[in-house]
Amino acid sequence: MNGSRMIGQVRVVGTGLLGASVGLGLRALGVDVIVHDSSPANLSLAIDYGAGRAARDTDNPRLVVVCVPPDVTARVIADELVAFPDALVTDVSSVKAAVLTGVRAAGADLGRYVGSHPLAGRERGGPISARADLFLGRPWVITPQEGMPAAQVGVIEDLVLDLGAVPVIMTAEQHDTSVALVSHVPQVIASLLARRLIGGSESALSLSGQGLRDTTRIASSDAELWVQILGANAAAVTAVLREYRADLDRAIDTLGAPELPGARRALAELLAGGSTGVSRIPGKHGQDRRFNQIVVMVDDRPGELARLLTEIGHIGVNMEDLRLEHSPGQQIGLAEISVVPDAEAGLVADLEARGWRIAQVGA
Amino acid sequence: MNGSRMIGQVRVVGTGLLGASVGLGLRALGVDVIVHDSSPANLSLAIDYGAGRAARDTDNPRLVVVCVPPDVTARVIADELVAFPDALVTDVSSVKAAVLTGVRAAGADLGRYVGSHPLAGRERGGPISARADLFLGRPWVITPQEGMPAAQVGVIEDLVLDLGAVPVIMTAEQHDTSVALVSHVPQVIASLLARRLIGGSESALSLSGQGLRDTTRIASSDAELWVQILGANAAAVTAVLREYRADLDRAIDTLGAPELPGARRALAELLAGGSTGVSRIPGKHGQDRRFNQIVVMVDDRPGELARLLTEIGHIGVNMEDLRLEHSPGQQIGLAEISVVPDAEAGLVADLEARGWRIAQVGA
Repeated sequence: MNGSRMIGQVRVVGTGLLGASVGLGLRALGVDVIVHDSSPANLSLAIDYGAGRAARDTDNPRLVVVCVPPDVTARVIADELVAFPDALVTDVSSVKAAVLTGVRAAGADLGRYVGSHPLAGRERGGPISARADLFLGRPWVITPQEGMPAAQVGVIEDLVLDLGAVPVIMTAEQHDTSVALVSHVPQVIASLLARRLIGGSESALSLSGQGLRDTTRIASSDAELWVQILGANAAAVTAVLREYRADLDRAIDTLGAPELPGARRALAELLAGGSTGVSRIPGKHGQDRRFNQIVVMVDDRPGELARLLTEIGHIGVNMEDLRLEHSPGQQIGLAEISVVPDAEAGLVADLEARGWRIAQVGA
Repeated sequence: MNGSRMIGQVRVVGTGLLGASVGLGLRALGVDVIVHDSSPANLSLAIDYGAGRAARDTDNPRLVVVCVPPDVTARVIADELVAFPDALVTDVSSVKAAVLTGVRAAGADLGRYVGSHPLAGRERGGPISARADLFLGRPWVITPQEGMPAAQVGVIEDLVLDLGAVPVIMTAEQHDTSVALVSHVPQVIASLLARRLIGGSESALSLSGQGLRDTTRIASSDAELWVQILGANAAAVTAVLREYRADLDRAIDTLGAPELPGARRALAELLAGGSTGVSRIPGKHGQDRRFNQIVVMVDDRPGELARLLTEIGHIGVNMEDLRLEHSPGQQIGLAEISVVPDAEAGLVADLEARGWRIAQVGA
């Protein structure tokens, strides 16, 4: 016996970061994992890495997990449905409606296909970056078609739970409009913002602060992969981008004549709306709690930040978030520590008593 | 004698976060600081807080630092130039050309005005948030007019150095186009992106990841202050926003017909440009170094992160950056540690030997 909910063989097609991580996670629970990849070199690397074993003619997988690039996902799903007529097939691609349409167009047996999407992994990697615990604590959306028997959906839920992720049931369309809003559109917007920096002067960029770093960080993701994702979810993404552009047009019009009556009020409403929007993003533990921030100055040498955090531990306060800020030109860091509001005043007093310099305190 | 470069009295007008921090920082060096605020309550609070003393009829400040909201900065500068005919006057507002124009329009003695802008402070605070070390390690732009004697600029440089900041000399126009690019436009874009979240479903927002959090964080800033800043730098901001909108239009057009010849290539070029742009942002020590990231899983209880960082200190590796990621629904955190590439493999091996779970490794 093993520790998994999954019963039977699992076949993983595509051994990049996600596929190899699925394999490693299931293998760790004792599941018989078969890995396959169109690249013999990738396959061999994944097997060496422990993600699974090579296919045999006698294989009879209960579940096939398709982990190939978005552009070829539908075709591979259709092929697997034909090759393994007793298996349920799922995939992990970032868009769901286009994949379903593609599988349907291929004339495959849709009754054995349940789409899914783990919100995990970065746009870098390959099998060498794979981890058995890549999905731990992440949402993993499952998008059953209407009328899909609960037992079939349950197999995918077992997979998700085995890998430590949190199952979230949605329709394919709900999924696609959701990720358009919280993932795909932010990617486009961050990339276009970062693109403006190409023409900036060195001296302008020397004034960069944490705000610019944060707003553009994801723009360094893999452009080719994102072209596939955005192309496959183009309708949902453009719908949000058009609403965004309407706001942008208003902002540009307003700033083009900032002294006109009502201009400042219109601009204030646009900006205040952003603040309202941010407050809707769930916090650390899935709640919308607000924390207070304390900024502590930390010398940039090994052990100093550890010493700070050790002392915070001794004080007995739990950090809700920690972020390091960099001070250009100086070998000093600012550690921004988020704590529940009730803990702030005591922590500041205790840290100052221990000789730490508090750079800023504010809600 | 005192430890400051500044000689003589310094008068600080406006005792919000920046003004009170200037006062505290100079007082700590023994400078005679006079504080003034149009609000008697704010003034009294700042004096109680130690930011300076009340004005006297015999005051003869060498320097006046105007730290009032952008909308009234030019008028207050002009008034101070008249009230203190022997003083040099500077200000700390986030826009410089509009202030200079305003001071000129008021018919003031421009020969004694040197604008400046510390890249420090958040859009929150007031005197209660002020810190003597608020400016430590931050760039502080000085914008002398053409032909300004070096000795006058030197007084402002002394102020900047006394407060631990890094002086950066630019023209007012260079400053305004620079901050439009690296600060004001990112603020508008983040706010408009976050505004889209108002209409998102709860289930969509439950899929939010670190990318969305980072791209929208600054959207929770003070809308009223930003209306003043953006209004005063409207031309430079709209110039960048128009270029941005041209890229956005291309992205929307491309995504509107993603199967047209050339569409994917055009989209790939837009996204790749974002990656190029990000690479231009200077890193921690003002250099453009690239680090490798190691992601370590940390139980969410007091002391665990400290224990990790203590052990990293024992291993002898210097973290270049640290960022905590949150896993929705689970009491576990992911600590992303940036190190120089040469240190990565050894650190991973050492941490794993000490029982830490490494969630992802990648360049």
